[in-house]
Amino acid sequence: MMEDFELKPGERLDDLQAGNLRIIQSDDMFSFSLDAVLLAHFAHVRSRDRVIDLGTGSGVIPLLLTAICKKGPREIVALEIQEHIAERAGRSVAGNGLSDTIRVVHGDLRQAARMFGTGTFDVVTCNPPYRPAGIGDASVMESIRIAKHEITCTLQDVVEQSAKLVKSGGKVALVHRPDRLVDIFYEMRRNKLEPKRMRLIHPREHTNPHIVLIEAIKDGGKELRIEPPLFVHEADGSYTEEIRKMYGGEILRL
Amino acid sequence: MMEDFELKPGERLDDLQAGNLRIIQSDDMFSFSLDAVLLAHFAHVRSRDRVIDLGTGSGVIPLLLTAICKKGPREIVALEIQEHIAERAGRSVAGNGLSDTIRVVHGDLRQAARMFGTGTFDVVTCNPPYRPAGIGDASVMESIRIAKHEITCTLQDVVEQSAKLVKSGGKVALVHRPDRLVDIFYEMRRNKLEPKRMRLIHPREHTNPHIVLIEAIKDGGKELRIEPPLFVHEADGSYTEEIRKMYGGEILRL
Repeated sequence: MMEDFELKPGERLDDLQAGNLRIIQSDDMFSFSLDAVLLAHFAHVRSRDRVIDLGTGSGVIPLLLTAICKKGPREIVALEIQEHIAERAGRSVAGNGLSDTIRVVHGDLRQAARMFGTGTFDVVTCNPPYRPAGIGDASVMESIRIAKHEITCTLQDVVEQSAKLVKSGGKVALVHRPDRLVDIFYEMRRNKLEPKRMRLIHPREHTNPHIVLIEAIKDGGKELRIEPPLFVHEADGSYTEEIRKMYGGEILRL
Repeated sequence: MMEDFELKPGERLDDLQAGNLRIIQSDDMFSFSLDAVLLAHFAHVRSRDRVIDLGTGSGVIPLLLTAICKKGPREIVALEIQEHIAERAGRSVAGNGLSDTIRVVHGDLRQAARMFGTGTFDVVTCNPPYRPAGIGDASVMESIRIAKHEITCTLQDVVEQSAKLVKSGGKVALVHRPDRLVDIFYEMRRNKLEPKRMRLIHPREHTNPHIVLIEAIKDGGKELRIEPPLFVHEADGSYTEEIRKMYGGEILRL
């Protein structure tokens, strides 16, 4: 049964295109992106897993994970550094009737292992800021700058904290930009997170990839499996079948 | 003008499908592979470059580079640890009338920087053994085991020597297996070889890649560009257009 969503001025209720989930979004923050949808589908979350999503923003990844994983993970901690964004994510969770599964916490991911303990999660997910601080338009709103740029956390922070939070044999799933792939692999291995599975996302055939999905295993053996490329658009601009399935909920309801 | 090729018992003269080049091969060694053809086309070799090919085998990569680079590199050193293979490569070079450009040297790549000096090459190419020593069929012939397994050199040896041989700003082009990608990136960065360009080769669409091509720049900035995937076969099993062009010589004669 759908609960009521409490909306504040400037906010709107959007369809997550997954089950009957909805999400509160607003114009002072960018809407949930393809990155989040891709990561939620890429991550291997099993029922009874304890999951933490670092830098959860509107809470889109935890919400999608509850729809994708039929029996649902045991608990998802959704950590967000911006207080008003965390508060809004909490209302989205409550509105969807998922407060028993998803716990939104306002806090700094650089303190996450101190807050939640080391080796306490089966899966860590993260859609971190991609751009080094100082690059890009300083005139954009602060909340968007923090989400997109490495202002409150760097890639190194994300990898170090993930490596601490996850248990040995547990998984860390990350979405990032392909031009940072060497940084990601290097930091992961230095932190005993061994990249085991990777997928490149290309806008369309014959183009360079613009998104990379990586799953690492804590203390895992050294062998990477690269999956077939995923193309987002057909030559005519329409979504490819695989992307349509993610948005249409076919995969989501598996 | 084509020179004469001196053939020994058990050897045959094969068409390299590039210009009018031919190559001496035999049954006690596997024939030149797609890996070599892909690497020769992937590497950026300019005229007047000084190049070294580590573990050259039959000399296929140096031979192809002379056909792909119209004006030709200034010099290509072709280093091979197995004496009879090096001797044969030398006869292929002589037969093609390329002894002024390609110098085949019998030697151990682990001693390459000591033999040729540090920072003395513009480009290093290498199609190294892929498999860790001890894995695979010990009954295969010694010459094939050395070429395919990390018996006489490991990935670490290849990266360390390449980093020493190449000058600052120079390029190292490698063909390898995707499951070793993390090892490759990690070793490269540790040796100040920054991976800058990468391409994945897949047997066909919707399959995992089986080959990876990587170009690193000595002391290069941290930004990787991943190129579109290359599919070898169409769904019907025939070669894709891009592969046909490589073998048909269209790209080779650019």
